[in-house]
Amino acid sequence: MEKCRMVFSGSGGQGVITAAIILAEAAVLYENLIAVQSQMYGPEARGGATRSDIIISDSKINYPKVIQPNVLVCLTQQAYNKFYPIIRPGGLLVTDTRYVKTQRKADAIQRELPMFQTVMEKIGKPIVFNICMLGVVISMTQLVKSESIMKVLETRIPSGFLEMNREALTIGMAMGDESIN
Amino acid sequence: MEKCRMVFSGSGGQGVITAAIILAEAAVLYENLIAVQSQMYGPEARGGATRSDIIISDSKINYPKVIQPNVLVCLTQQAYNKFYPIIRPGGLLVTDTRYVKTQRKADAIQRELPMFQTVMEKIGKPIVFNICMLGVVISMTQLVKSESIMKVLETRIPSGFLEMNREALTIGMAMGDESIN
Repeated sequence: MEKCRMVFSGSGGQGVITAAIILAEAAVLYENLIAVQSQMYGPEARGGATRSDIIISDSKINYPKVIQPNVLVCLTQQAYNKFYPIIRPGGLLVTDTRYVKTQRKADAIQRELPMFQTVMEKIGKPIVFNICMLGVVISMTQLVKSESIMKVLETRIPSGFLEMNREALTIGMAMGDESIN
Repeated sequence: MEKCRMVFSGSGGQGVITAAIILAEAAVLYENLIAVQSQMYGPEARGGATRSDIIISDSKINYPKVIQPNVLVCLTQQAYNKFYPIIRPGGLLVTDTRYVKTQRKADAIQRELPMFQTVMEKIGKPIVFNICMLGVVISMTQLVKSESIMKVLETRIPSGFLEMNREALTIGMAMGDESIN
């Protein structure tokens, strides 16, 4: 496995940092990988675009910051406008159709998916939007198994909410599978 | 202000990553500072010592990883044993008396505080142990105001739990104030 460098971006309340931490923990605790996860908060964070970096690898990671991500997820227009230029040529760009109008064709596999809308229609809880996004990412990258994500969720959230998270993850994975075929 | 480099360490469930994120957000959103917050998960994370790095500064931060922290917090014996050697000479080392027996005198201001015990006696909820620890850190470093931490908490947790968090923060701040005088 090569190093996979990812940036999840969006606005504060969308849970992109949490999603990044869950993915990193799943990779390390249940898939025998190494991960580093970070966020830089600059003056621009006050404007509203949150960014969370994750690198997953099977060998030592020296530099924790992502310069050019293989995988870039943008959940708001502001995040898309800001981070669009950093994607690695040939990488994967995932945006949410409800929040982002893409303006250019990226030099990347570009997928505009109705993640938010589907979560609202099928589950009705915006709080699991980030888990649906994780489902898309793991299905498209095959980085970690869904069971590993669920094991992390089991240690983090009350059992009454697990089913809703599992459902969001499954919706995301189906959406990712479909968009790749 | 100089850059303040911090490492919060402990075991998975103690909330050291959450505490680091809350502190970074408070600094950036309400104190006009710049922050970077990261965690490296290596094979050792499977052993149990979680580490979260935070750098807070009033100017650009180039390298997100902390090599020698000015402030090192250790909430378990394992974390203490592992990270003790990295403290910056003259820095601040905070440990919890319930979980850590310090074995050497560090070349640092060393404070062993009954954070866990006091939280359990006065609040009875281990979940706010990390917020008490944050109270100690902000009181000893004067990095951010307690109101800035509370503003972040208000956006993150249900209002019914805010009072408990405020109490834990206040307990920590009192403990920090006392231990410095």
